[in-house]
Amino acid sequence: MTVKDRSGFHMSPEEFRRDGYALIDWLADYAGDVGKYPVLSQVEPGDIRAMLPDKAPQVGEPFTDVMADFERYILPGITHWQSPNFFAYFPANNSGPSIFGELLSAGLGVQGMLWLTSPACTELESHVLDWIVDMLGLPQKFKCTSNGGGVIQDSASSATLCAVLAARERATRFNAKEFGSDGRLIAYCSSETHSSLDKACAIAGIGIKNVRKIATDDFMAMSPKAFAEQIETDRNNGLIPFFACATIGTTSTLALDPVPEIAAICEEQRLWLHVDAAMAGTAAMCEEHRALHRGVEYADSYCFNPHKWMFTNFDCDCFYVADRQELIETLTILPEYLRNAASESGEVIDYRDWQVPLGRRFRALKLWFVIRHYGVEGLKHHIREHVRLAGEFARWIEDSEEFVITAPPRLNLVCFHHLQGNEFNEILLDRLNKSGRVFLSHTTIGGRVSLRLCIGQAGTTESHVASAWRLIEGTARQISDQK
Amino acid sequence: MTVKDRSGFHMSPEEFRRDGYALIDWLADYAGDVGKYPVLSQVEPGDIRAMLPDKAPQVGEPFTDVMADFERYILPGITHWQSPNFFAYFPANNSGPSIFGELLSAGLGVQGMLWLTSPACTELESHVLDWIVDMLGLPQKFKCTSNGGGVIQDSASSATLCAVLAARERATRFNAKEFGSDGRLIAYCSSETHSSLDKACAIAGIGIKNVRKIATDDFMAMSPKAFAEQIETDRNNGLIPFFACATIGTTSTLALDPVPEIAAICEEQRLWLHVDAAMAGTAAMCEEHRALHRGVEYADSYCFNPHKWMFTNFDCDCFYVADRQELIETLTILPEYLRNAASESGEVIDYRDWQVPLGRRFRALKLWFVIRHYGVEGLKHHIREHVRLAGEFARWIEDSEEFVITAPPRLNLVCFHHLQGNEFNEILLDRLNKSGRVFLSHTTIGGRVSLRLCIGQAGTTESHVASAWRLIEGTARQISDQK
Repeated sequence: MTVKDRSGFHMSPEEFRRDGYALIDWLADYAGDVGKYPVLSQVEPGDIRAMLPDKAPQVGEPFTDVMADFERYILPGITHWQSPNFFAYFPANNSGPSIFGELLSAGLGVQGMLWLTSPACTELESHVLDWIVDMLGLPQKFKCTSNGGGVIQDSASSATLCAVLAARERATRFNAKEFGSDGRLIAYCSSETHSSLDKACAIAGIGIKNVRKIATDDFMAMSPKAFAEQIETDRNNGLIPFFACATIGTTSTLALDPVPEIAAICEEQRLWLHVDAAMAGTAAMCEEHRALHRGVEYADSYCFNPHKWMFTNFDCDCFYVADRQELIETLTILPEYLRNAASESGEVIDYRDWQVPLGRRFRALKLWFVIRHYGVEGLKHHIREHVRLAGEFARWIEDSEEFVITAPPRLNLVCFHHLQGNEFNEILLDRLNKSGRVFLSHTTIGGRVSLRLCIGQAGTTESHVASAWRLIEGTARQISDQK
Repeated sequence: MTVKDRSGFHMSPEEFRRDGYALIDWLADYAGDVGKYPVLSQVEPGDIRAMLPDKAPQVGEPFTDVMADFERYILPGITHWQSPNFFAYFPANNSGPSIFGELLSAGLGVQGMLWLTSPACTELESHVLDWIVDMLGLPQKFKCTSNGGGVIQDSASSATLCAVLAARERATRFNAKEFGSDGRLIAYCSSETHSSLDKACAIAGIGIKNVRKIATDDFMAMSPKAFAEQIETDRNNGLIPFFACATIGTTSTLALDPVPEIAAICEEQRLWLHVDAAMAGTAAMCEEHRALHRGVEYADSYCFNPHKWMFTNFDCDCFYVADRQELIETLTILPEYLRNAASESGEVIDYRDWQVPLGRRFRALKLWFVIRHYGVEGLKHHIREHVRLAGEFARWIEDSEEFVITAPPRLNLVCFHHLQGNEFNEILLDRLNKSGRVFLSHTTIGGRVSLRLCIGQAGTTESHVASAWRLIEGTARQISDQK
């Protein structure tokens, strides 16, 4: 084998331009056509692997061949999250400017672990996260220009883990970091809190059995009374309450924990309060939804995910703390090879000390691009439109004689149940998703298997929601008729 | 404010094509010109933020304006990791096909948390990571088609954390996950091991004080004798040795821990053995460097980073385990809303249970694109060229009367020291980096401040390395003359 030219096997600038244009075209077409694909991939386990060769190629291949294989072998195995007919889970929407942000970040290929390793990567992140404090009506203490600050994490799971760790260190005066956990620390959340808190406590050496799942009220919100009582019980048993997670918009139903009441208890009992607004937080940009953030001013930490409902590609979770020193002291380790004058001056932020990994890419670019492209008004417009469409859908359910709403419809989510019982709803969901025409997910509310329809894709319009409703109604009738 | 058209404020397909082409052009130009920028950004703390407006824009702006601001305000704050004159730390190189992989991943915007949420995202990852087992001569037990398997983590730090957690659960029979750690577990590494092990043990509730830093020999490799003795001491004190990390290519000097000897002790003492080959692992693709992986067949887990030296954008760490059930059982949490038939069949991999976060993007695309574009032969060619260039540089140092080599040159790294003492070397490094013409980092070896020159950028050729050497020699003479 001979080397093709002095730059070896690297892609030439001409190839990069030609194949890059073609890929941009492919993505532009995809964004237009994505509604035509089956939303949920219809492949069986192992189908994709079975089509791929057993060994890596010895010799390089033209990019056009690779893209052809992508279309042939990979695309059938894609579940199309960007489809306007995707209504499952919470959305993870993207947008042109966000895709450009990822592209530019990949092309620059910089590391943001230290301020020094690319100052703009750190400073743009601090800056845009400070912007968002004002955009969402968050407390000023969360700004980097104050004693707190924001950082982009890959996910709310990682944000929760960092909050748990900082709280653990506060509670043990940094003893756990040095000598290990001792199994007596107790964390609190509701039975509706995202499973990432269990995972964080498992990871942090707290233990899942030490996560108390506080009972919820009729609206699936944490009961402050039950919370306070549980703390008292635990203290009486010689345990050490140290952390609570309140959720603004739970995963199942977008229920709202009563943050002000929970915060008052946390303050009195000196617990770290973390507020998880992973999807719902974005809505607080709109004045009419600003009240979602009531009580957040008392929180020690807060997170929401622009990668869910703010047209910013995964991964982009914005995590804020009121006191950045506690977080930094929790996560810092300083080996010789990372020492530098800028860090030692204390004038800069080194984001490696705000997260689990050391390395980090330039994720602030995509967030900056999205905010610049849409402007706050543009973002608000689309959030309002999604909320309006969910409201329409909820009315159709309410008007129906076969379906009922199973949780108060909130923002962009509607949970509903066909009156013919749980098994019927399971069959209905399976039939709908296998049709490839929509993708919904489910949850169980008060014992009733419920379908969840969540609206958040960039391309979803009223006609998609109306089609989904016709399909749901029609499929339910078909199943009834077959019985 | 009125809505521009029925798709609201979203970027139109025409805008996406036009601005996307322009961005592709920008990146093609950047890849060609990156050597002309100052490698290390020359801005002062706060400079970038001071140029940005205090508030987010209310109204959206054209992408050309945003890119103009990027060039004006952000680019001066970039440290150019892709510069052919970047020789600091370890590289984090990228390439055309890798950038395309990130772009396509961003455009698809799929979530790979479950097999179901995009089967191809999971299956391509398993498949390519199985390819790499053969490419690097890793043991077959690490394949997904065996009882083990590979997964892409964001970084070696996260891989180490997952290894520590699985080891912790094995040692406590999943007691730590449920009830918390107990501060008696002891982890082992050498004094040269990456700081991410301290961080992982701090996070996992093990405690940094319970990480034993075993002494190293003259080649900065862990002493098996000292390792075995420390285990005995700890057992005699009622402590529970559970984990060891051996490094193939340490961060400071690319030292090689004696994996076979460490593995024998781990097997006898029933410790989990994790092998960290973050940068050096890539070189094992070449037959002449295959011996780097001697002993890895005994490891419980292993990782290396294609995002360092395999032309694959950060983030891409390949993490392998010999027994995937232990890892999965360590990290799984199953809430109702994630239950699905495919997962319950046991026939599929759900990668959320192999990592800390829940969500994950389609990172296998970039790795697949890189391997397809270069072929194994192309990758080997560039690795060999980097190693050859480092060998040249080492010979120039050896021939010099002013500089000495301070660690055995290995692969693509040379550590060296000017004979005029530590302060002189610090001044030299500072002067070199402030010139903007090269970027090197430092370490301390046997008390001697040493400069590290590591070769791994796609564009680095012999002329860049020769220029760097002339600059280093010339700058040293200037400093000497000024004394």
